[in-house]
Amino acid sequence: MRVVGIDPGLTRCGVGAVEGSIGRSLKLLGADAVRTGPETELPERLVAIERGIDAWIDEHRPDAVAVERVFAQHNLSTVMGTAQASGIALVCAARRGLPVVLHTPSEAKAAITGNGRADKKQMGTMVARILGLDTPPRPADAADAVALAICHIWRGGAKARVAQAQQDFARKVELARRARRS
Amino acid sequence: MRVVGIDPGLTRCGVGAVEGSIGRSLKLLGADAVRTGPETELPERLVAIERGIDAWIDEHRPDAVAVERVFAQHNLSTVMGTAQASGIALVCAARRGLPVVLHTPSEAKAAITGNGRADKKQMGTMVARILGLDTPPRPADAADAVALAICHIWRGGAKARVAQAQQDFARKVELARRARRS
Repeated sequence: MRVVGIDPGLTRCGVGAVEGSIGRSLKLLGADAVRTGPETELPERLVAIERGIDAWIDEHRPDAVAVERVFAQHNLSTVMGTAQASGIALVCAARRGLPVVLHTPSEAKAAITGNGRADKKQMGTMVARILGLDTPPRPADAADAVALAICHIWRGGAKARVAQAQQDFARKVELARRARRS
Repeated sequence: MRVVGIDPGLTRCGVGAVEGSIGRSLKLLGADAVRTGPETELPERLVAIERGIDAWIDEHRPDAVAVERVFAQHNLSTVMGTAQASGIALVCAARRGLPVVLHTPSEAKAAITGNGRADKKQMGTMVARILGLDTPPRPADAADAVALAICHIWRGGAKARVAQAQQDFARKVELARRARRS
């Protein structure tokens, strides 16, 4: 599966694209950041972010989009812009009918490093290792977006396997029930 | 001038449209709320809000859009959804090239009632009186959106008059300078 990850932000909105599936090696398709400057008015910054995300999704044609869940508790000064950018990211994905899932930073950290409190450096090292890169994607927001995409493939894969196992079990129960009847 | 006011919200996003200019009576063109339910996933709720705002702007073809400025300090539990809805509102206006301005709730209250701390009832009474209505628009979010549109016409008018006066003064100074030269 191909997943686009988005780390919402007003100044730098990280975007990444990863292809692969659980149990196989993952491939980085691209990583970048949509940048807007404080000299631009807020509405125009949000429109630029929308265009950047739209272009990224059109280029990479993902099966799903993973967006970082924003919390109001952190960084009160920047949280409004981050929340607005995350709203744009969700709409860009949802109006194309793409499945879009929110992952918290802790979920991404736990998926990538096994530690929900891992620091930036540890995350960067693991993202590079997972994707077979010499160095983590730059800037940091792009690396975070890539981490979200990896997290989505692995978490989605785990959920899908549980669902598949439940389905298999239900089918066996049904077959056993029919066998007893006949 | 015709102004669309938007009071962003995830459950009820108030929209209003008012026509008029400062010193003349104002006319209510419409007031409503775009509603989305908590049973719907967040990305689909935001898409529904985008569609509702787009339809409202297309119907009323405003000269400007006024959006309530959201603060992170208030209602931590709902502020993220409100911020995301406000981001959508700003993008809907800006990608049409419409001027879009943020007004704080205090600015709207001060413009409508003369008191930046006026309560909902006082605001509703004054909105109805200003527009020549028997009762305030319903629901409350629609009335707030209408108040933002009125605030924008009156504040914009005041700003425009100051700008005009400054321009007139500069022209007179320039004419006097030229007269002295010749």
